[in-house]
Amino acid sequence: MYAVNVRDHFMIAHSFQGAVFGPAQRMHGATYVVDLELRRQALDADGIVVDIGLATQVLREELAALNFQNLDEMPEFKGRNTTTEFLSRAIFDRIAARIAAGALGVQALPSASAPGLQHMRVTLHESHVAWACYEGALPATA
Amino acid sequence: MYAVNVRDHFMIAHSFQGAVFGPAQRMHGATYVVDLELRRQALDADGIVVDIGLATQVLREELAALNFQNLDEMPEFKGRNTTTEFLSRAIFDRIAARIAAGALGVQALPSASAPGLQHMRVTLHESHVAWACYEGALPATA
Amino acid sequence: MYAVNVRDHFMIAHSFQGAVFGPAQRMHGATYVVDLELRRQALDADGIVVDIGLATQVLREELAALNFQNLDEMPEFKGRNTTTEFLSRAIFDRIAARIAAGALGVQALPSASAPGLQHMRVTLHESHVAWACYEGALPATA
Amino acid sequence: MYAVNVRDHFMIAHSFQGAVFGPAQRMHGATYVVDLELRRQALDADGIVVDIGLATQVLREELAALNFQNLDEMPEFKGRNTTTEFLSRAIFDRIAARIAAGALGVQALPSASAPGLQHMRVTLHESHVAWACYEGALPATA
Amino acid sequence: MYAVNVRDHFMIAHSFQGAVFGPAQRMHGATYVVDLELRRQALDADGIVVDIGLATQVLREELAALNFQNLDEMPEFKGRNTTTEFLSRAIFDRIAARIAAGALGVQALPSASAPGLQHMRVTLHESHVAWACYEGALPATA
Amino acid sequence: MYAVNVRDHFMIAHSFQGAVFGPAQRMHGATYVVDLELRRQALDADGIVVDIGLATQVLREELAALNFQNLDEMPEFKGRNTTTEFLSRAIFDRIAARIAAGALGVQALPSASAPGLQHMRVTLHESHVAWACYEGALPATA
Repeated sequence: MYAVNVRDHFMIAHSFQGAVFGPAQRMHGATYVVDLELRRQALDADGIVVDIGLATQVLREELAALNFQNLDEMPEFKGRNTTTEFLSRAIFDRIAARIAAGALGVQALPSASAPGLQHMRVTLHESHVAWACYEGALPATA
Repeated sequence: MYAVNVRDHFMIAHSFQGAVFGPAQRMHGATYVVDLELRRQALDADGIVVDIGLATQVLREELAALNFQNLDEMPEFKGRNTTTEFLSRAIFDRIAARIAAGALGVQALPSASAPGLQHMRVTLHESHVAWACYEGALPATA
Repeated sequence: MYAVNVRDHFMIAHSFQGAVFGPAQRMHGATYVVDLELRRQALDADGIVVDIGLATQVLREELAALNFQNLDEMPEFKGRNTTTEFLSRAIFDRIAARIAAGALGVQALPSASAPGLQHMRVTLHESHVAWACYEGALPATA
Repeated sequence: MYAVNVRDHFMIAHSFQGAVFGPAQRMHGATYVVDLELRRQALDADGIVVDIGLATQVLREELAALNFQNLDEMPEFKGRNTTTEFLSRAIFDRIAARIAAGALGVQALPSASAPGLQHMRVTLHESHVAWACYEGALPATA
Repeated sequence: MYAVNVRDHFMIAHSFQGAVFGPAQRMHGATYVVDLELRRQALDADGIVVDIGLATQVLREELAALNFQNLDEMPEFKGRNTTTEFLSRAIFDRIAARIAAGALGVQALPSASAPGLQHMRVTLHESHVAWACYEGALPATA
Repeated sequence: MYAVNVRDHFMIAHSFQGAVFGPAQRMHGATYVVDLELRRQALDADGIVVDIGLATQVLREELAALNFQNLDEMPEFKGRNTTTEFLSRAIFDRIAARIAAGALGVQALPSASAPGLQHMRVTLHESHVAWACYEGALPATA
């Protein structure tokens, strides 16, 4: 199995609800350094897992939609605790939808001759001592 | 699958027995930077894999029992080579027992409605060029 | 010249005022991984620059006062842009005051026989691609 | 499952063919920081996954054959795009052959009493924001 | 003294002349992860050392002129060994010229009321075990 | 000013004397990841600060004399607390003596036409959250 990983980051404000979060129930924030890992069984005709330029661009675009936001005010996160693990999944779902829509090229999609990208992992590093991730098969299913 | 990881460290002295270890047969020591990774299929009602505060505390407590020790003199390691991979397993077993005893909360345990924590990996970084880990399913079985 | 460095982190929300900040004028946040470096010309009688346990504790206490806060609502930051470089200085000043008050022990202070700690640097890493610092002589002067 | 990882690096020149590579079609180069991870189900009688000295030496030898080379001029890479993921596999295959030939000792090989090394991952970090890997079961099969 | 640092990277091919370089006399290459650090005595009216967006952009532009190049074929490097330390200086000089031309804004330049940026350091990391830098006062003088 | 840095590591056992050290008064140990930084005003005729191959070799040789040792039993450390900052100085002194003896080549030494290496810093990283260093002018003087 082959994998390729690209890295970027975003910075947000948010607060959590629930006694388990202690002082993190207050409005605070985080820098998330994000790793996007894509896997497939065999390389394509160019000798690559994915067009790394497109993967970098799609990651940047999806993080740009979150960057410099107060997540408490975004409708799609209403009533949810935007924990590191929750955000890993949210970004996974957004990028999976972009892949399904062709944003990483046709070779990222399953075809008669090749399975395309088969697995994705999104990791969010919130500090030098803590991170979380969500990973699953592609094409993603709800 | 979701994962959360927390990091801490400990510093010990030890020596190894066996020609394969060369100069490491002498009394020497190491700093181990430890990653504790916990995995589960679905988030709990608070939107988390585990209470990260409790996970950090349990990791610190288990490492405190080893920190600033000469492992050659600890009864539980008598006659064993406390290699990086061996210690990864020893810490895995200690933390697995703590989880089974409820130290990470009831939501870390299997219940009628959720499987709780399902997988754990303990990684020990011994330098900038070497590390080892032990990983396995939870609840752990001997 | 000798130096010792200890590391910790904190997570906050804030917003900036001024066109130069672009989208960072919105409420957002950051994780800051903080390095506290202390320098002196000669080691003390114990062979150390500073009691690393005390230095770690003072750093943690000062960061705890900022951790999980919305800096826009803290009176001491009223009307200021709490940029990474500004916060480096704010933390430098707080720790310098603690040192002057004896929090790192008498050997950290100038005496008839030794100059004590002579220089401090506070570095805040805001992501894997950006950091800022403030450094200056000790004892600090306004 | 236990794992041990050792790290080294090499520096090469190369160029790629195909519009997908954009400016990387020109002669350029890279530093690759390489992680070699080896896995097995149980430790051997010495308490190790593998002789880490031998693993370090075999990795260094295989990278030395590539280090300071123009990959475009090496016969074995003729007509191939030596992408990061392609090179991960090439190094995997070379080290798998060395293991099969006994370079990591007899305990790395399957025997009547133990399965030896069971899995290998070769990761090439090409920058602070991108890496690729190839991983697979041992003994490796074409 | 305040400092701000931004990071980017570039990938090149080159060869060296001189017995001291051993196998690096062959055509090979490197990834350079670049840190650009800028220093000044006092923050400007916005509370910053420099517009970090402009600093990031100027660094990217200057590295883009080198990225994916064979340095042996660039006229400005004719007959020179483009070692890591030499390149640190070359990039320092290019960015110093950009600053002098106003690329980081007027507040980066000396004025009647403030000295502007006073010091710059350019560090090139060539692997996980080696780096080089060039640093000097601003405005730079030949 | 130019600088070049190379990195290596060593692993030792030791204990400290003095109440300030708390549990570190017990026999324990550490991995030290070591950075050796060398500075000079101008590059030599080859375009380098120092022969990086020689610098790497001298660092490895000096660390080999300490690696896998119980420092409490080494005559040169009798009655001394081998703290991270103390060891930084001890390694500085050993390498300074090697440089003075010509181990880094004649161009590392002051001559009629060039000052040779002018400054050295030895940094010992003892964990992901603590390091110490010693730095001073070359040629070193007691």
